[in-house]
Amino acid sequence: MIISMKRHATKAEIEEVCDRIREFGYKVHSSEGEERVIIGAVGIGDVTACLESLEAMPQVEKAVRISAPYKFVSREFRPAKSQIRADGIEIGGDEFVVMAGPCSVESEAQIIETARFVAQHGASFLRGGAFKPRTSPYEFQGLQLDGLKLLYQAKQETGLGIITEVMSDADVGLVAEYADILQIGARNMQNFALLKALGKINRPVMLKRGMSSTIKELLMSAEYIVAHGNSNVILCERGIRTFETETRNTCDITAIAVLNELSHLPVILDPSHATGKRSLVPALGRAGVAIGADGLIVEVHPHPEKALSDGAQSLSFSQFEAMMRDLAPYIALWKQARVAEAVTA
Amino acid sequence: MIISMKRHATKAEIEEVCDRIREFGYKVHSSEGEERVIIGAVGIGDVTACLESLEAMPQVEKAVRISAPYKFVSREFRPAKSQIRADGIEIGGDEFVVMAGPCSVESEAQIIETARFVAQHGASFLRGGAFKPRTSPYEFQGLQLDGLKLLYQAKQETGLGIITEVMSDADVGLVAEYADILQIGARNMQNFALLKALGKINRPVMLKRGMSSTIKELLMSAEYIVAHGNSNVILCERGIRTFETETRNTCDITAIAVLNELSHLPVILDPSHATGKRSLVPALGRAGVAIGADGLIVEVHPHPEKALSDGAQSLSFSQFEAMMRDLAPYIALWKQARVAEAVTA
Amino acid sequence: MIISMKRHATKAEIEEVCDRIREFGYKVHSSEGEERVIIGAVGIGDVTACLESLEAMPQVEKAVRISAPYKFVSREFRPAKSQIRADGIEIGGDEFVVMAGPCSVESEAQIIETARFVAQHGASFLRGGAFKPRTSPYEFQGLQLDGLKLLYQAKQETGLGIITEVMSDADVGLVAEYADILQIGARNMQNFALLKALGKINRPVMLKRGMSSTIKELLMSAEYIVAHGNSNVILCERGIRTFETETRNTCDITAIAVLNELSHLPVILDPSHATGKRSLVPALGRAGVAIGADGLIVEVHPHPEKALSDGAQSLSFSQFEAMMRDLAPYIALWKQARVAEAVTA
Amino acid sequence: MIISMKRHATKAEIEEVCDRIREFGYKVHSSEGEERVIIGAVGIGDVTACLESLEAMPQVEKAVRISAPYKFVSREFRPAKSQIRADGIEIGGDEFVVMAGPCSVESEAQIIETARFVAQHGASFLRGGAFKPRTSPYEFQGLQLDGLKLLYQAKQETGLGIITEVMSDADVGLVAEYADILQIGARNMQNFALLKALGKINRPVMLKRGMSSTIKELLMSAEYIVAHGNSNVILCERGIRTFETETRNTCDITAIAVLNELSHLPVILDPSHATGKRSLVPALGRAGVAIGADGLIVEVHPHPEKALSDGAQSLSFSQFEAMMRDLAPYIALWKQARVAEAVTA
Repeated sequence: MIISMKRHATKAEIEEVCDRIREFGYKVHSSEGEERVIIGAVGIGDVTACLESLEAMPQVEKAVRISAPYKFVSREFRPAKSQIRADGIEIGGDEFVVMAGPCSVESEAQIIETARFVAQHGASFLRGGAFKPRTSPYEFQGLQLDGLKLLYQAKQETGLGIITEVMSDADVGLVAEYADILQIGARNMQNFALLKALGKINRPVMLKRGMSSTIKELLMSAEYIVAHGNSNVILCERGIRTFETETRNTCDITAIAVLNELSHLPVILDPSHATGKRSLVPALGRAGVAIGADGLIVEVHPHPEKALSDGAQSLSFSQFEAMMRDLAPYIALWKQARVAEAVTA
Repeated sequence: MIISMKRHATKAEIEEVCDRIREFGYKVHSSEGEERVIIGAVGIGDVTACLESLEAMPQVEKAVRISAPYKFVSREFRPAKSQIRADGIEIGGDEFVVMAGPCSVESEAQIIETARFVAQHGASFLRGGAFKPRTSPYEFQGLQLDGLKLLYQAKQETGLGIITEVMSDADVGLVAEYADILQIGARNMQNFALLKALGKINRPVMLKRGMSSTIKELLMSAEYIVAHGNSNVILCERGIRTFETETRNTCDITAIAVLNELSHLPVILDPSHATGKRSLVPALGRAGVAIGADGLIVEVHPHPEKALSDGAQSLSFSQFEAMMRDLAPYIALWKQARVAEAVTA
Repeated sequence: MIISMKRHATKAEIEEVCDRIREFGYKVHSSEGEERVIIGAVGIGDVTACLESLEAMPQVEKAVRISAPYKFVSREFRPAKSQIRADGIEIGGDEFVVMAGPCSVESEAQIIETARFVAQHGASFLRGGAFKPRTSPYEFQGLQLDGLKLLYQAKQETGLGIITEVMSDADVGLVAEYADILQIGARNMQNFALLKALGKINRPVMLKRGMSSTIKELLMSAEYIVAHGNSNVILCERGIRTFETETRNTCDITAIAVLNELSHLPVILDPSHATGKRSLVPALGRAGVAIGADGLIVEVHPHPEKALSDGAQSLSFSQFEAMMRDLAPYIALWKQARVAEAVTA
Repeated sequence: MIISMKRHATKAEIEEVCDRIREFGYKVHSSEGEERVIIGAVGIGDVTACLESLEAMPQVEKAVRISAPYKFVSREFRPAKSQIRADGIEIGGDEFVVMAGPCSVESEAQIIETARFVAQHGASFLRGGAFKPRTSPYEFQGLQLDGLKLLYQAKQETGLGIITEVMSDADVGLVAEYADILQIGARNMQNFALLKALGKINRPVMLKRGMSSTIKELLMSAEYIVAHGNSNVILCERGIRTFETETRNTCDITAIAVLNELSHLPVILDPSHATGKRSLVPALGRAGVAIGADGLIVEVHPHPEKALSDGAQSLSFSQFEAMMRDLAPYIALWKQARVAEAVTA
């Protein structure tokens, strides 16, 4: 932290500030300028509380944090990119990973049919919601345990890994029995009880960025899971909320490049939720490959217009097939770049 | 819903759309214009899924919802304002309610001292966090059960009602034993597992608006609690996230007037979180009284500069006293207006 | 500015940074901590360019501005609130000022009728657009010179002062002939050619906050006008753009309190544009009085449902009258507070 | 437009609404449902005023626009993509266009040196600001006429086309003498006096999206220029303002795909302003190529750390060269796609 005192702060006031900083466990070094005194604080402590406390002191002009508030998820802590294994597949490595499937698991026919199709066309994970977060209590809430069982059945028939959402700390154990990756939805990114529970399991977690969460807050939520014991965290950009209404959300695609600079964790792009319109999904998917995401998670449904949720943004089978064909040369360039990076590193 | 077809939609395509609407349980009436056909859909069903399904059909130009997606919380359902009783105090009635106390319960001395002071100066509820949602895993997480016990002790010594946050469905029962009102924080406004659990208890709930939640989504989350059995819901505006950084959040004060039009539920303003700066709290508090909030929830700490959280936005004792004095004539006008409304209604 | 160097910066690198700071005209004083060196820069120069230049240097960790980027409009420069006189009426003084009238000047009958009514019910300025900024080229663009003449006629008949918008530096001279206050719309808050032209005239200017402008940027735009020679600037909060769609804009009412802390310039609230719905205007107007705005600017139309623009947010005559009656006791409290402040200061 | 009446609207009230719609020049056709009456309005008129007028009528539940508010810039008006020629170069055609150069023209040496370098490495236009919009009146405001002359000199020495910003309608003629493309900055996107002036010249215009402007508003501003006589408009996505602070703006990359669906006008991406950090520019540039932008505009400076503006986001010469090398295979894929589209169309 750097603390800048007001112009006419007295010696006694400066000493009071230094004492406060020391109470929070930091070492102090101060510097007298012509106009004002500047104080540096070094060490480990509850930075936020310390900053707030200092800003509450009348003689303090400004208190600024210098170092990042997260540690284990940072590139400083681990300079090389992390590879995370789920069901034998590596995420964050040399293969671009595609996760595909319906928004909700609706029936055996629907999920098995979809699983077979996406497996044949390049997906390595099947997505599908058994527990569904819905804005309205009157909307379809998911098949729950039955949905998990259908996903497991699809896995056995196709060999695909399973990724599915968990919404409550009470369900973490149950979902972890069936899923290869536990997905945390945007609305739960700061459900800290849930994050702590995820820290205690032995399964990879994909953490979606909250609708109005900063990149730093996303990393802090990932830090929660890692600090509580589970270092297998995958990040996901799925669009943020802005004033624009042509798309369901606004994809902050640059966040992928920023996350690659700040963190060693893999990053997945969700072009379905980011756009909310199927016609835009393939174009945004290409952009995601080009900017260096580690994979895509895409909604696919045998009959999008009959889907119980997210019909407007789900690709049909033929659209998914066309998208995968369209992406192929971009994925080839992506692989070249990954191999080149590995050689350099 | 109103569905507008594309210009050159054929009769068969129009019929297909009508069939889809009927599958979702609605009645259909269509109207042929010079340029395009417009279809109306009436009834009760999963509106969101139906709209998404229709928008996924190529011949549909636009599908628009007409009626509000919530029911029990609406003014249409209950035209008169609701009064909610907690610990014998009425919220939403003829008394302006002040809830005050520290961000976190830190110690016996701190909470008892604060409770006594705010009780003497016009508060009827004591606020204080025992379970704390913190962005960083390294920040103070609250005293938890010990905090709840200290709140209960403060209640017994002062007669104040207790409002405190619950963060997980697993803790709802425990917190309900100690608190008169359960507070749901902004980050949990769409924690649907928690909302459902709150529907099953016999205690009032104060639901804070999410940082990037619309007014409609706030009402939908309240509808969750009511639809699951608990109609004692209080709403709270605490600022939303925007690009502005001079304040911690941007107080959407108009939301209070909008909520009063759309819903019968009481609305509380939190000027502490809305501003993040204690110097702004009294001015925003006045505005809250003037616009017709049913009460305020305010952070007060015996030594704000030593607080373990939210020091910068907490009022000191003398500042709280001054604010209450400053508010008094505005609250007197507020009461006159309430009484006048009651006479008119 | 405070510049924090990276951990392992060498002496040569530190010296290079100090040289760069000196090139921008600042004095340097540096301080060696245990972990890193911190450099302070004092003086007057192009702060933004200097900060950007420093952040472009690889050995710099962070460069932070300490003092505000504006000067003449700040409370530091002028601790007492400014009173600005227009047509003999003081804004920022002991009288709460109401500006009222239609969005657009449409006809002689409309503007004269409105002027008479609002003059009788407490307004001291007539608002009305002669030059209209419209999102679409196909919308009504205003009566232009004819509109200005009608406003002038209304002034002569009622004695009201005139406030009207100017949209181009080319029109500043013309509008200044007819208007007592020149209004700058939200879309032109950073039209720097226009701001410079306004600096050269001898008429008060009311500067509306841009839809996505920060409070700091609003003050910087006011600084443009003052720095170019015209110190008679009035600020106006009219709502900012957020994700919320229930209201046309989101009123950042706290901005009024923030502006009162940071600047000596008067601040007006526009509850009509801030809400976009007439039913919400009176409630927000009360909040504006309570938080300490210096006045309101409100849209009033003899027949809102026939207005050529902004019909949905315009008050009818009887609604304006009711609002003024409703506001009266709040304005009485406002005056008491102003007089008390004057005594204290 | 579609107008939905309130449930218990009387025949007389419905007729009143129909009359109002006809007054605005539309034809009416109404349809009686079981619950409410729905009215359709067809024709050409001032849609916004009509909608606002209708929403101001008490018996109207909702009034919704169906067709887009712009015409000439839409794909419906012109299904094939437009190619715009500037200085002999086609934008929107089969060649990916790169515009590069410094934020501000600072000196002869700086601009000539930069022009030569970017010309050698694949740019076809030189960018450089002579008139600079700066938030602060104390920042460098550009070399103005001298800057224009230096740009012209650079053009003669290198053969590059020139793109530079114009900030006021008064300067449009002057800038058009020197520039091949006139750039409109984000802050002026709704400077309607300027847009009208641009409609009257015979030079292409590049219109940057406003910081908080919707895609629809961007198209409406383009419509202004076209409706006033100049159909040579190029659109530019440069990031929007959100709550995220890791980047200077948030690049709404999906807007490029949306604009390609809605409009025939070419779209350029500005990854420099969208990110504000040079390390992120190449990655975002790749994403821009992949999603189908027609070109990039990039800030390049011989000594970014000495730049008078935007140093932090400017590429050095070697970084620009590396970026162009990195982009080459993506541009090759882009060309294949363009040729394939042309064959299909």
